[in-house]
Amino acid sequence: MKNIVVIGGGTGSFTLLSGLKKHDVFLTALVSMADDGGSTGVLRDEYGVLPPGDVRQCLVALSSSQSLRDLFSYRFSDGTFNGHSFGNVFLSTAQKVSGDFEKAVDLAAEVLGISGKVLPITTTDTKLALVTAQGDTVIGEYKIAHSNMKERPNLSLLPQAVITERAKKAIYDADLIVIAPGSLYGSLAPALLVNGVGEALSTTNASIAYVCNLVTKPKQTDGFKVHDYVSEVERFIGNECIDTVIYNTDEPPPSLIKKYTHDGEFIVEFDLDHMHGMHYNAIGAPLVAEEPITPSAAGDEIAHARTLIRHNTDELARILLSL
Amino acid sequence: MKNIVVIGGGTGSFTLLSGLKKHDVFLTALVSMADDGGSTGVLRDEYGVLPPGDVRQCLVALSSSQSLRDLFSYRFSDGTFNGHSFGNVFLSTAQKVSGDFEKAVDLAAEVLGISGKVLPITTTDTKLALVTAQGDTVIGEYKIAHSNMKERPNLSLLPQAVITERAKKAIYDADLIVIAPGSLYGSLAPALLVNGVGEALSTTNASIAYVCNLVTKPKQTDGFKVHDYVSEVERFIGNECIDTVIYNTDEPPPSLIKKYTHDGEFIVEFDLDHMHGMHYNAIGAPLVAEEPITPSAAGDEIAHARTLIRHNTDELARILLSL
Repeated sequence: MKNIVVIGGGTGSFTLLSGLKKHDVFLTALVSMADDGGSTGVLRDEYGVLPPGDVRQCLVALSSSQSLRDLFSYRFSDGTFNGHSFGNVFLSTAQKVSGDFEKAVDLAAEVLGISGKVLPITTTDTKLALVTAQGDTVIGEYKIAHSNMKERPNLSLLPQAVITERAKKAIYDADLIVIAPGSLYGSLAPALLVNGVGEALSTTNASIAYVCNLVTKPKQTDGFKVHDYVSEVERFIGNECIDTVIYNTDEPPPSLIKKYTHDGEFIVEFDLDHMHGMHYNAIGAPLVAEEPITPSAAGDEIAHARTLIRHNTDELARILLSL
Repeated sequence: MKNIVVIGGGTGSFTLLSGLKKHDVFLTALVSMADDGGSTGVLRDEYGVLPPGDVRQCLVALSSSQSLRDLFSYRFSDGTFNGHSFGNVFLSTAQKVSGDFEKAVDLAAEVLGISGKVLPITTTDTKLALVTAQGDTVIGEYKIAHSNMKERPNLSLLPQAVITERAKKAIYDADLIVIAPGSLYGSLAPALLVNGVGEALSTTNASIAYVCNLVTKPKQTDGFKVHDYVSEVERFIGNECIDTVIYNTDEPPPSLIKKYTHDGEFIVEFDLDHMHGMHYNAIGAPLVAEEPITPSAAGDEIAHARTLIRHNTDELARILLSL
């Protein structure tokens, strides 16, 4: 059975895993661990636990029990637990009880009956840090997400995080590693900057694919084309080790484009001029889901329900499995 | 396999179930559903859910997974979730998601991998009500627990609750029904006053046993002897249908007795004079656990860690299985 490792945050990995799990492959999600916003941020602050949110989304993606998926994705909208997702509370409590986040994730995986594995890429209690153009240091993914980025921002993890043994082994055991779409600076950078990740990705025998985002993020990746994303991902890895880049060639319906443009988000374009002599293979395909996900259908499984333009998970899986 | 039904609240049923589950019997816990104090009370108030606390304790008693028992019993001691037990949060969230408390309990039972069944005795959203000697009505188990009781207090459920179909079936299918020790007015009355429970207990072919408390409760059962407890239990059932009463003949160590006496609690005595011509068989045995449970060992599985004099669960199970 093909061994596929997905590296990313919550939403992008959820998308990839949801498509891939319909096939006869063994999936391992390596999850970014620097989130500090929302429910996750409150739990980190109050209970000193590691961030559960992205891990929860990957666990839910790989569970086949609808009632447990619904339970773990449920988010309280009032009362004492307002804003918290039940799955986050589960993971945080399990970490408090066992004193070990990896054990907590294993317990949740067992309860959810997942097929495959979900592993935090690091268990270092770390935060993302940005040194701005003015030389100021901004600490925390949530704050950074609301800062203006300079070009090729100076990002790091504070304290420097170290890859877990299990995550490292997964990278070496993989046949294919997929770097998921999602927030380039908010999800991918914190995963790829973990000490040991770049080295493992540079020396594994696995093929490495990167699935590029569909739209740019205002103040962060304005004007980015596909090759800009790839170049930033490889800057964080520290090596030009990406073998395949998968990008979208589809145009979403004008009504959606208008809405996105209004929010300062634009479809990521592929610039052929930059591709000559590149070390990676670029595969373009119509990747926008025909049925854009509506906030109600996305429910709480998708962290950013606002993002209505979605990858076609089945088509993505088909391409990845053809590599 | 012998079909044994245990009726009670959280702590007393936990004790019985913990001993009985070591034997080759099929256990069903029918759980009192009028608790409204502590974590359970907050969840009821804020989320309109049914009381999870006693159900949680019975589920934990029947689970064989130590890590899940620990998780469900974990109680937060600070932060936003201060005072809540994780198992309560699980049950309440599952009820919010499915809209059905019985389904929520079934889901928790599946997750915990319990052997046997845990069933709420009613799914009516009800509270215990006391009409005092002065004619005032006090509503809520928690408030009532802190009121002075008159003799043979006038208790009822508001609104009147109805037994579930599954609880009724369990009573008729049972070989042995055990009414658990625990708070007479706080746990047993609210279970036995549920519409349909008395009738089912009066007409089932099962043998019915009652395990009497070890100590009296100040302001509620002051001066009660074993026959007073039995008489009150049968008043709530509405019928003299108890076949066997099991009571303690042991004296706890003087140091513990002193502590209890200081708190206004006394060992429940057996008064032979009242037993002539009684309709039930009374079995006395040394039932005090040799190792009194310390608060730290009891942890959060026991609601009232203060109560250090405990039933010897193994001896209780041995007697019950000999009936």
